Amino acid sequence: MSDLSHVDESGAVRMVDVGAKPLSRRRAVARATVRMAPATAARLGALPKGDALTTAQLAGIMAAKRTSDLIPLCHPLPLSVVDVRLTVVAGGVEVEAVAETTARTGVEMEALMAVSVAALTVYDMAKAVDKEMSITDVTLVEKTKEVVCAPPS
Amino acid sequence: MSDLSHVDESGAVRMVDVGAKPLSRRRAVARATVRMAPATAARLGALPKGDALTTAQLAGIMAAKRTSDLIPLCHPLPLSVVDVRLTVVAGGVEVEAVAETTARTGVEMEALMAVSVAALTVYDMAKAVDKEMSITDVTLVEKTKEVVCAPPS
Amino acid sequence: MSDLSHVDESGAVRMVDVGAKPLSRRRAVARATVRMAPATAARLGALPKGDALTTAQLAGIMAAKRTSDLIPLCHPLPLSVVDVRLTVVAGGVEVEAVAETTARTGVEMEALMAVSVAALTVYDMAKAVDKEMSITDVTLVEKTKEVVCAPPS
Amino acid sequence: MSDLSHVDESGAVRMVDVGAKPLSRRRAVARATVRMAPATAARLGALPKGDALTTAQLAGIMAAKRTSDLIPLCHPLPLSVVDVRLTVVAGGVEVEAVAETTARTGVEMEALMAVSVAALTVYDMAKAVDKEMSITDVTLVEKTKEVVCAPPS
Amino acid sequence: MSDLSHVDESGAVRMVDVGAKPLSRRRAVARATVRMAPATAARLGALPKGDALTTAQLAGIMAAKRTSDLIPLCHPLPLSVVDVRLTVVAGGVEVEAVAETTARTGVEMEALMAVSVAALTVYDMAKAVDKEMSITDVTLVEKTKEVVCAPPS
Amino acid sequence: MSDLSHVDESGAVRMVDVGAKPLSRRRAVARATVRMAPATAARLGALPKGDALTTAQLAGIMAAKRTSDLIPLCHPLPLSVVDVRLTVVAGGVEVEAVAETTARTGVEMEALMAVSVAALTVYDMAKAVDKEMSITDVTLVEKTKEVVCAPPS
Repeated sequence: MSDLSHVDESGAVRMVDVGAKPLSRRRAVARATVRMAPATAARLGALPKGDALTTAQLAGIMAAKRTSDLIPLCHPLPLSVVDVRLTVVAGGVEVEAVAETTARTGVEMEALMAVSVAALTVYDMAKAVDKEMSITDVTLVEKTKEVVCAPPS
Repeated sequence: MSDLSHVDESGAVRMVDVGAKPLSRRRAVARATVRMAPATAARLGALPKGDALTTAQLAGIMAAKRTSDLIPLCHPLPLSVVDVRLTVVAGGVEVEAVAETTARTGVEMEALMAVSVAALTVYDMAKAVDKEMSITDVTLVEKTKEVVCAPPS
Repeated sequence: MSDLSHVDESGAVRMVDVGAKPLSRRRAVARATVRMAPATAARLGALPKGDALTTAQLAGIMAAKRTSDLIPLCHPLPLSVVDVRLTVVAGGVEVEAVAETTARTGVEMEALMAVSVAALTVYDMAKAVDKEMSITDVTLVEKTKEVVCAPPS
Repeated sequence: MSDLSHVDESGAVRMVDVGAKPLSRRRAVARATVRMAPATAARLGALPKGDALTTAQLAGIMAAKRTSDLIPLCHPLPLSVVDVRLTVVAGGVEVEAVAETTARTGVEMEALMAVSVAALTVYDMAKAVDKEMSITDVTLVEKTKEVVCAPPS
Repeated sequence: MSDLSHVDESGAVRMVDVGAKPLSRRRAVARATVRMAPATAARLGALPKGDALTTAQLAGIMAAKRTSDLIPLCHPLPLSVVDVRLTVVAGGVEVEAVAETTARTGVEMEALMAVSVAALTVYDMAKAVDKEMSITDVTLVEKTKEVVCAPPS
Repeated sequence: MSDLSHVDESGAVRMVDVGAKPLSRRRAVARATVRMAPATAARLGALPKGDALTTAQLAGIMAAKRTSDLIPLCHPLPLSVVDVRLTVVAGGVEVEAVAETTARTGVEMEALMAVSVAALTVYDMAKAVDKEMSITDVTLVEKTKEVVCAPPS
């Protein structure tokens, strides 16, 4: 019935026990797109100092660090790096985030949180001039790991 | 050049000053969709107690209360209610959030944060069985206000 | 079936909508007891500067301010005062907290959170010397309000 | 005078230095009881989907992850699992939490925080129908460790 | 003995009760200086996009919003605006923050927190190239208020 | 152009990738001074129980644990100890903080955050009686490390 990993057979939610998993170096890459009127996108890209994009980039990095505070069943992870990039394209902004850790569980929720909050921050910065934006295609595009240490036995 | 409300003429970012705006009763409604394999969606909806959906609902409500911690230029707001609903449909989950406040600035970022974090929580709960999910169409569907009090003069 | 105020008829959880309630000045008082060996209690009370108690007092005040971050369906409240007092008695420490606000909903969870976290902090300070402590009788002892402003109509 | 571990000889508070302790796999189990009228307990247990209990369970898990933010002298710990269970009994709800980590210091405060906040959340959900609840017997019932790694020398 | 407002006659700390104070529109301005080698300052000012300064500016704004989480006896305040400006000068960076609210207590700690965290962020960005920086002259330069509403009586 | 470690060649901000650095035992010591009227300092030092200083000490310890939440590009670190000491001198209070960790990156921002927030807390406690205080000489006075473990290769 349930291989949904966070719900046990009685239907109760639970945090997956990762205590016996090996320490691995883990990496995840996520993407999202903020769709907006081309005129809005053009203006975002023409700001003298790019600060709207920097604001979104920083918001994404800071949100990644708080993923386990926000997603109820996520484990706290010692992130070794979070990198968020925003690219203005015709009709929108593309957001990509890389998150890495050496831990017992994956880092994809951190990458997804980073792109989501960066996208919401772009939305917040531009909402006064564009009422029709949307955030789409929030997806995981890469997830890898490499065991660095045997599990505690 | 810039009517992007959070970037001033020199390109510096800024929090909009809402001190002179009237206190209004404000309401915003946002939506998002988590797309997944029909088999995943069917299972989410058939869990004995629906707890995966409750988890996402609570995560959305709690995230709404932390919007001003996450979106750099958002004002803290005294939310009077946040309501998050998830509906399992063929091929996914639809998330809708209502946020209301009596404040000097709008509550749309709180509603958008609620649906985004609720959607990410669904993703987290189901990611062990479905590697191809995505979150789409994060949009604001309603925003209203009603002045309840003249501004401080 | 359900007048449990945070669960609706379908069983879904919800934050109560307080937007139409009047602004009232509200006050709540809560208490808790940390039970411990008399020898532990005697030592807590004989510390040169009372700092273990001050630590617990501050932890309680700070936790009260974060109640809406911790209790999923609590509303954020603008606390006007939180006062936490600890008294060493034979066999333990009594904790009392007063919380006050001018808001649309009650402040009892803030007072209860304050005494709970203050009690847990006493436990943390003394656990190296006493393995048999417990926290009991966490209760609300007073709850009052006084309407100061008609509701927005 | 003081083997209270968090207070030094001058009476000043301090965080215990755990840098030289070995990395151990650690586990703690805590319990608490929410006492309420039998009629309230019966209703909590008869809700169509058990969501009041799920809400409390999630609140407890999330609070455990924030223990070092709330208890002033606690160390941040990489929790590998937190499990919170609530059982409706005659006259109340019993809460049990298990917390585990691989770290240099114990995880009992995390387990105690989980049961305390889960109990407070039950209180919050039911307070509209029962004004006489109390939380009692917050206790540690098990604490174990197993060294997995020699300390840094 | 003590007109230190947060310590009562018995020496116990306390949060000042502001419940009976009038709602006033309040404003505070604070400043700080980060001293560094002229070569470091020159480089900070010559970055292609000014992003190190934007990062510090945003960190200051976000920290202001969390003042009551960090300063134990501060009241939570609904900030209506926080504005942080950084100016590169010979030998350093000058930071100025303005914070405003309509509340029952002053907003100076928010302005001081903003400049302190902005200054620490400049330090963090430049510490790889300059080991001799310091932060000085963290001061309040203006504090005003204007009553907008009689107190609740 | 830029060896400012958090700004890349295009001017974009970034979190430094520490994933390939060795695990080291790291220690940092920071200091700050709160300058005030001698009469204020005398009173702080003559309080019956020293609680104003304990409050500042605890605020510093707790803030150190939240450094990565506040400084945008800081990594989360598992602090093994934070020690904050305040000394009343003629004309002010001297604050010193020690922070230690076993991690892949340094702990100086944690020590600097601890002294800054402890100093701001002294300011908050005494501001009702002294309007002319300032915080100066926030500096790093020691930074050491010792490799305990080869990097993951």
